[in-house]
Amino acid sequence: MSEFDEATAVTALGPGLFRADLDAGWGLGNDVLNGGYLLAVLARATLADTGESAPHHLHPTAISAAFVRPGMAGTADVRVDPGPSGRTVTHRSVAVGGAAGDMVTALVTTATLPLADALAPTAPSMPAPEECVSMLEKMRAVPGGMDLLPTLMQRVDLRFDPATAGWLDGVPSSEPVLRAWCRIPGREPDPLALVLFADLLPPSGFAQGNLGWAPTVQIQTLVRAVPAPGWCLIEIRGGTTADGWIDEDCTIWDSGGRLVAQSRQLARVARG
Amino acid sequence: MSEFDEATAVTALGPGLFRADLDAGWGLGNDVLNGGYLLAVLARATLADTGESAPHHLHPTAISAAFVRPGMAGTADVRVDPGPSGRTVTHRSVAVGGAAGDMVTALVTTATLPLADALAPTAPSMPAPEECVSMLEKMRAVPGGMDLLPTLMQRVDLRFDPATAGWLDGVPSSEPVLRAWCRIPGREPDPLALVLFADLLPPSGFAQGNLGWAPTVQIQTLVRAVPAPGWCLIEIRGGTTADGWIDEDCTIWDSGGRLVAQSRQLARVARG
Repeated sequence: MSEFDEATAVTALGPGLFRADLDAGWGLGNDVLNGGYLLAVLARATLADTGESAPHHLHPTAISAAFVRPGMAGTADVRVDPGPSGRTVTHRSVAVGGAAGDMVTALVTTATLPLADALAPTAPSMPAPEECVSMLEKMRAVPGGMDLLPTLMQRVDLRFDPATAGWLDGVPSSEPVLRAWCRIPGREPDPLALVLFADLLPPSGFAQGNLGWAPTVQIQTLVRAVPAPGWCLIEIRGGTTADGWIDEDCTIWDSGGRLVAQSRQLARVARG
Repeated sequence: MSEFDEATAVTALGPGLFRADLDAGWGLGNDVLNGGYLLAVLARATLADTGESAPHHLHPTAISAAFVRPGMAGTADVRVDPGPSGRTVTHRSVAVGGAAGDMVTALVTTATLPLADALAPTAPSMPAPEECVSMLEKMRAVPGGMDLLPTLMQRVDLRFDPATAGWLDGVPSSEPVLRAWCRIPGREPDPLALVLFADLLPPSGFAQGNLGWAPTVQIQTLVRAVPAPGWCLIEIRGGTTADGWIDEDCTIWDSGGRLVAQSRQLARVARG
């Protein structure tokens, strides 16, 4: 079992109640966890909950989530409220929390998705992974770099498009756009991995040299198809900034260039 | 009080519990209600619930919702679950339902938004409302047209850009894009009206002459600023269609051309 599957596993405690051991290895620093990782845990709990009543719905298809408190590593409860299941979709309301209250509340809709190879390729052109910039190797080369790198970034292989990697060398871009190949070493992508990938890259402001974090307030992730094996291409794009709020769009294509997932989030940015 | 404010009013029944009289006048036909109208009701219940505990958060800012059963006109309960309130945002989980169960479940985040005139204008160029195509007048001119028009469309004033109004004359466009000026007669726009506007236009497929309905599965609406008085400009754009699923983006600008709201939804379309 891959590190990702171990770290997102849930144990049934009773009807609609699961335990998760939220793993600091998928964090941003100070035990605060990555949002995509938390949503993957919620998706797994939902699939575990609906496995018997809706075995025909295999994939997380739409997840909308509010990050109501910082997601902290440690043992947590996942509650899955009852919801309807029809021919096309199954709906659940889900929350993960600890002693201090809910950390993430979410609406999870499951269905069974088509294979991506049924779609037309639409990915932007991009140099091959071996011609791109590995964040991990970059940070390894800098004294103390690995201490700065979020633990999460040591568990995925990210290769940035050189056109959007200038910030790693202190040469910011004029556009709030990041583009990178991504894979989990030793594990092929699937709809669950796409839930992680859709909130994985650093904030789009990094491209412009604004290296502050931008906590997600709400996110909506749509998984559109089952990806082919190999690298996925992730692009994020900052939208409008207003009064400390920013919207950010993420689009993901599989190794065949087919659209496989999308997300949009509203986040808070430090005011200039 | 405007029809819209009357139709979205809620009455407190107890802590976190409200009654709404869901009004068939905001429907699509057969008493099935418009999604934006239902989200406006949920937003009002949330503001009523948080009015005392978070009086500094005046506006619905992010609403993510799952349409778990058809929204039907009639008396309904709105439940607002407790959630945290901080300096910047207040979070609530909200559901509206009747005897058959929840119709819509939602995550509502409130905050206080800036005035739109603090933003730079970014609206697309568009003929003035009086040079655009009124859907209401168009349907009035057709024998039996008013019987075909959803009740909702008789309560808002929509003026379609002639470039995206060909479908009203049986001349479809090649692009899944609709653009229209919108206002509620006798009532200026505010963040609550934007929640309605963000899921108000017919499906983007109408532009291409596909006049079938496309029920929303999940939607995320982000309100970004308090609009100036006058007409709002709504643009919707269909994205990728795959295996009966379509994503659709909506962007709204105020009369000053400033971005004031965005939404993205995943919907079901009839398979070709």
